Parts: sequence; C-alpha cells; structure tokens
Amino acid sequence: MNTFTTMEIKQSIFADNDQDAERLRQELKQEKTFLLNLMSSPGAGKTTTLTQTIAALQDEFRIGIMEADIDSDVDARAISKTGAKVIQLHTGGMCHLDADMARQGIRGLGTKDIDLAILENVGNLVCPAEFDTGAVKNAMILSVPEGDDKPLKYPLMFQVCDVLLINKMDVLEYFDFDLEACKERAKKLNPDISVIPISAKTGEGIGAWADWLRQEVKRWCAGE
Amino acid sequence: MNTFTTMEIKQSIFADNDQDAERLRQELKQEKTFLLNLMSSPGAGKTTTLTQTIAALQDEFRIGIMEADIDSDVDARAISKTGAKVIQLHTGGMCHLDADMARQGIRGLGTKDIDLAILENVGNLVCPAEFDTGAVKNAMILSVPEGDDKPLKYPLMFQVCDVLLINKMDVLEYFDFDLEACKERAKKLNPDISVIPISAKTGEGIGAWADWLRQEVKRWCAGE
Repeated sequence: MNTFTTMEIKQSIFADNDQDAERLRQELKQEKTFLLNLMSSPGAGKTTTLTQTIAALQDEFRIGIMEADIDSDVDARAISKTGAKVIQLHTGGMCHLDADMARQGIRGLGTKDIDLAILENVGNLVCPAEFDTGAVKNAMILSVPEGDDKPLKYPLMFQVCDVLLINKMDVLEYFDFDLEACKERAKKLNPDISVIPISAKTGEGIGAWADWLRQEVKRWCAGE
Repeated sequence: MNTFTTMEIKQSIFADNDQDAERLRQELKQEKTFLLNLMSSPGAGKTTTLTQTIAALQDEFRIGIMEADIDSDVDARAISKTGAKVIQLHTGGMCHLDADMARQGIRGLGTKDIDLAILENVGNLVCPAEFDTGAVKNAMILSVPEGDDKPLKYPLMFQVCDVLLINKMDVLEYFDFDLEACKERAKKLNPDISVIPISAKTGEGIGAWADWLRQEVKRWCAGE
C-alpha cells in the first residue's frame, strides 16, 4: 500500500517562466516554506542523499519531498519509508520542471505543515538547468563515477546551482576522478558555488551538507 | 593543435522529424554508410566505449565519429587520438539531436570514405530518446553506478534502443547493482533488445559488442 499521492503534472500555461518563478518564491516567503530544487544526472544518488538529509534534519524541520519522474514511483516509495511527507509527480515525458509545475507539486504537498520542501527534479544535467522552478536555492549532485570533466560539458547546470554535492566519495579510489580539478572547474564557472564532498552511502559529509541547508532554511523562514 | 573540425549545429527547419529521419536513412543506404546513434546519461562512458570500439573495428571499417556536446571539445580531443576521423558538433544548448542535425554532422564528416559513422549524442536519458536521428541502429550505455532501476524510470530510452551496453562491470562489486534484474526490466520494456555487459576500462565484453556491431554494419553495407 502506498503512503503517498501521485499527481500527473500539467504543462504550464505561463509564457514567462522567470516571472512566474519569482511569484512562487514570494508566495513561499509568505508561507515560510523553503523550497530546494535538487538536480543531477540519472543515478547520481539524489534519492539516497535525500534519505540522509531527512534523517539529519527531521527533528528540526517539517520536511516534504516532491519526487518528479517521467514514470514509476520507485523514489517516492523509498522516501516514504523515512516518515517524511512525500508526493510523486509524474511529468508525462517532460524532461524538466518549471515554476508552474513546481507550484502544482507544492499545492499537492501543502505548505501549512512544511518548513523545508525539496523537489527532486528529473534526472538530467541539461534541461532542468534552463528553468527556474521558483526554488529558493538550487543544489546539484555530481557523482564520482560520472567524471571530473562534467563542469566543462554541462556548464549551465554548474552556473545555476548554489551548492554542488560530490557524491559517492566512498568509491573515489576505483575511479580516475580528480576532486581538486573538478572543484576548480566548477568554481571557474561559478565562483560562489559551495562544494561539499559526500557519500550518501556511508554518511560522509552529510553533516556539512545538513549545516549548509539548515542555515539557508533558518534564514528564509526568519524572513531574511 | 586540434585535428578535428568543430561545427555549430543549427536548429532544424523540418516539421516532420520522423519523415526526415527516414529520408536520411535512405540517403545513408545509397552511400553505404551505417549510422549508429549512441546515447547514455552523462558520464556513463560513451567516449571510452567508442575508443575501444574504434580499436576493435578500425582494421575492418573506415570509422567516423561525431561528438555532440552542448559545449567543450573534451571528447573530440580524446577520440582524435585514436586516429579515427572525428568532428565536434556543438548543439548550442540543445538537449538532443534530431535527423536534420545528424545530417548536418554527417555532411560535415563526409560519407565517401566512411563505412561506420557513430553519433555520440548529448549525455541525457530523456530527450534524445524522443527524436529519431536517422540512425540505422540505436545503442545505449547504462553504467553500473547509475543503478539497476533505470529502465523503470526512463522507459522510452530502453524502448527505442536495439542494444543496451551495461558498462563499468569492473566496479560491479562496489555497487548494489543486480545485473539480472536490470536485464529483466529492459527486456520487459523491449523484448528484442540485446544486452551486453562490458567494461570500457578493462576491455571486458568489447569483443561481443564489436561482433554485434560488425554484423549490423556488414548487413547494411551489403544492402540487406
């Protein structure tokens, strides 16, 4: 039996997504709900990272998760086991979410009892980077097996994110991945990006990531 | 000094991509050039697999590679070291290639001296699956670290491919990846898909993959 709702998300009717995203952010500010947009390639570890994030912060914040997928509810099932509120969004083949789609999800989740809402975007390093979802902050995960050259190849994603989590640090020794080179490439594209190496599997670095997110959520909910 | 050309690919003018793809396939048939469309997530190992493929088949076929990227020429540089003919295609932010874009690449590469042309599509499991490039066959790479649940989450990609290469088999023991479950999920979506486990790093399985591709190229060039 599923403990979550599945919503079919409709394509947006708004011509100006940037304007609509700004409007959603203002709504969220009034509702004192922080929205994080989490992006990555398929299989970089978004759902496992979310499970760890929920465990680290669920005593401090009321957390709600939106799982966006083209199909399936694999991730929503995994998240529902954590006890956090979760909703599955089906994008009907769409390769990204925009602000209106994020709003549909937010309304489905409800903001009244939620301090921290996290949108797990569709696994894709290209299209989601082009659409402001109305999130307060954008986070991305790059996993070690994907390679340290990804900032060179998908620059926009690294430019729009506030924080870069480098995941699967537990397998670093089995891959040709130069952590410093990767950081340098990301910082060259986006000097303000925070880079936090983690392993969602072992828990390495999750404390530093939770610290970053805690500070941002508190600041937003305090109206700063 | 670069030993390859970089082309800026323009957006297509054709309304009906399926029709245009069929037209491109007919042109390729007359020119006795086989076009393979290779797709995967970012970092699944397309370029390393291509390097191995070239090494395995370059004594038998004249090979030309088209490297499609949003930005950078990292992959074209790597491929140019193999001695194969290579051209870098810049998509100007586009998340996929369609038939007209593939044709622009093919014309840039030239078919006169090419038996086997391979298009390395943009790293993306979503959008490239929706556009027929005019290729004779579609191949995809799923790498072990991405997880065995990907057929459930990106079904269309598995449905449109003729062959699935499961890459990074050399690190199988460090990941929770069930090879049989993955195969079963792919076959459920697409009973005709060939599944070949490989390691582009160690060379494991490259022989079986080269056998598959050799047979397809020979058949096409013989006009079958």
